[in-house]
Amino acid sequence: MDRLKSSIDEALAGFLKRFPKEADGGLYAPVHYLLGLGGKRLRPVLVLRAAEAEADRTPAEAEDAAGSARSAAMPAALAVELFHNFTLMHDDIMDAAPLRRGEATVHEKWDENAAVLSGDAMFALAHLSIQDTPWDRRDAITSRFNRAALEVCIGQQHDMSFERRTDITVAQYLEMIRLKTAVLVAASLAMGAVAGGADAERADAWYRFGELVGLAFQMQDDLLDSFGSTATGKRSGGDILADKQTYLMIHCRQHGLPEECAVLDRWSGVPSVSLQDEKITAVRAVMESTGATEAARQQMTAYVDEAQRLLSSLGLSSPHVAGLQALALHAITRTV
Amino acid sequence: MDRLKSSIDEALAGFLKRFPKEADGGLYAPVHYLLGLGGKRLRPVLVLRAAEAEADRTPAEAEDAAGSARSAAMPAALAVELFHNFTLMHDDIMDAAPLRRGEATVHEKWDENAAVLSGDAMFALAHLSIQDTPWDRRDAITSRFNRAALEVCIGQQHDMSFERRTDITVAQYLEMIRLKTAVLVAASLAMGAVAGGADAERADAWYRFGELVGLAFQMQDDLLDSFGSTATGKRSGGDILADKQTYLMIHCRQHGLPEECAVLDRWSGVPSVSLQDEKITAVRAVMESTGATEAARQQMTAYVDEAQRLLSSLGLSSPHVAGLQALALHAITRTV
Repeated sequence: MDRLKSSIDEALAGFLKRFPKEADGGLYAPVHYLLGLGGKRLRPVLVLRAAEAEADRTPAEAEDAAGSARSAAMPAALAVELFHNFTLMHDDIMDAAPLRRGEATVHEKWDENAAVLSGDAMFALAHLSIQDTPWDRRDAITSRFNRAALEVCIGQQHDMSFERRTDITVAQYLEMIRLKTAVLVAASLAMGAVAGGADAERADAWYRFGELVGLAFQMQDDLLDSFGSTATGKRSGGDILADKQTYLMIHCRQHGLPEECAVLDRWSGVPSVSLQDEKITAVRAVMESTGATEAARQQMTAYVDEAQRLLSSLGLSSPHVAGLQALALHAITRTV
Repeated sequence: MDRLKSSIDEALAGFLKRFPKEADGGLYAPVHYLLGLGGKRLRPVLVLRAAEAEADRTPAEAEDAAGSARSAAMPAALAVELFHNFTLMHDDIMDAAPLRRGEATVHEKWDENAAVLSGDAMFALAHLSIQDTPWDRRDAITSRFNRAALEVCIGQQHDMSFERRTDITVAQYLEMIRLKTAVLVAASLAMGAVAGGADAERADAWYRFGELVGLAFQMQDDLLDSFGSTATGKRSGGDILADKQTYLMIHCRQHGLPEECAVLDRWSGVPSVSLQDEKITAVRAVMESTGATEAARQQMTAYVDEAQRLLSSLGLSSPHVAGLQALALHAITRTV
C-alpha cells in the first residue's frame, strides 16, 4: 500500500506542476492546499491495485506487466483523487464546515467564491488527467468515470435533502451512501481493472466488489462516529449531537419501542454543550437496546461476505486475493 | 439559424428526459429551470454550423452529409450549452446576482447549496453528453472540450481578481475576455468542424476564427452596456455604475489626461441613486474624449477583419461563407 501511495503522490506532484499555485490568478492554490492536507489516497491506491491484479492474471509478454498496468492506470488514479477532493471542497461549502483534516476548509481560508471556482477547476483537471489514459482504454475508463461523477452528485443531493426529513427508511439511507461513497470506490476498482486489461464483464465484477466494500466502509464510519474507538478514543458522537440520520438512528426510529423513541425525541435538537455527554450516553443506549448496532454489524458483515465471494470468482493470483481480502476486512474492523 | 436552434431545443429536451426534474431528489430541477429561461443557444448553433460547413466541402457520399454531420455534432452542441449554463449558475453565485434573463437566479429561487450542486451535476451532464459523440471523433472533441472548460474557469478567476485591482492593462483585459468568453465560442466551432470531418489543422483555423469573433462580441457587449443602444434604449451604464474595469475604462486610465482621470476618480465608488444619470454622462464623456470608444471600435474591427481573412482561407462553399461573414459582422454591429 505504501509503495502505491508513494507512486501516486509522486505522479500527483508531477501533474500539479503543470498547474502551479501561482499560475492563472491563483486558481490552483486551493487545489494544492487541499491535496496537501494529506489523506490516505485510498481511491487512487485502489485504481492501481486493481490494475496490477488484472495485469498479473495473464502470462506477462512484457517484462513488467504490473508496471505497465500501473502506468496505464495512473491518469485515472489521479482523476479519482482530484474528483474526490473536488467533492470535498464543494461539500464543505454546503455543510458550512470550518475544518477539513484538522485545518481550515478552503472556503474559510479563502472565501466561498474561491471554493466554488477552484472546485470547478479541480473537476476540469480530473477530466484532463483521464485524457492521459492510453487511447485503447481511454473511452471505457472515461465512460465509467463520468457515470460515477454524476452518481456522487446524486448521493450528495440525497444527503442534503435527508437533513430536512425524519421519514427516511434504511433502504433509502443505504442507497444514499451507495451513491455518495460506494460508487466512487467501485468505479476506482473498475477503472483500474480496465487499465490492467479487464473486459467489461470483469470490470463490472470489480465494481460490485467495490460497491459492497464501500457500503461496509461507510457503515463502519457511522459506527465509529457514534461509538468512537476504544483504541484511539478520538471520535465521539458527532453524528449523535448533530441529530444526523445515520443507519443507526433510522433503525432506532423504525424498530424502537415507544419508550425508546421517546428518549430520542427528548434529546433531538438539544444543542446544550453541558448536556453533550449525557445526550451521547442516552442515544447510544437506545442504539444498543433497539438492536441498531447489532443490525449494522450484521449488515456490514453480509456485505463483506458477498464481497469475498465475488473476489474468489475473479480468479486472481493469491497475493492479490489476500491483499483485497484484507482490504475488505479492514473496512469493517478498522478503528480509525 | 432558427432551423438549427429548433433542432437543438428538441435534442436538449430529449437529453433532459433522461434526467427528469423530479428525479434524484430534485437535483436536475435547477438545470431544467435555467435552460428553460431561453437564450439564443448561440454556442450549440455554432457547433452545428461548423459541422454542416465542413460536411458540405467534400462531395457527399452519403445522401445527406450535412444531416449526418449535424447528428455527429449534436452531443457536443448539447455539451457546450450545458457547460455554458453551468458556468452561469456558478458565476451568478460568485457575483451574488439576483436575476438571470429577467428571472430569479438559481441560488435565489432555491439556495446556494442547490446552485453549487446542481451546477456540478450540469458539468457532469455535459461530459455524459460528449460521450454520445460517434467513437471516431469522440476523443478529439472531448479533448478540445476539456481544455476549453478549464480555460473558462481561468477566465472567471481573472475576472474576479480584477475586481479588486485598478492596475489592469488592456492586454490583461483582452486575455481575460478571451478565456472567459471567446474560448468557448472558438471551441464550439472547432468541435463542430471535427464532427463534420475536419482534421486538426482545419479545426484550429475554425478555433482562431471563433476566438476573434468571440473577442469582438464581448467588446461590443461592453460598448452596449456603457452606451446603450439607440435602437432599443434598453441598456444603460450598468458597468459604469459598478465601476467595472472594462476595455473602455482601462483605456481611459491608461491614456487619459490628468483632468480626465480626475473626473473618473471623482465618480469612482459613487453609489448614490440620485446621481446615477450624472455619473453615466460624465464617465461617457471621458470615454469619448480619451478616445476609448474609438479605440474599442478599431480593435473590434481589426478582430473581425482578421476573422474574415481566416474564413476565406477555409475554402468553404459560398452560402456557408456568407452566413459566417454575417455572423462575424453581427458581433460588432448588433444593438442587443
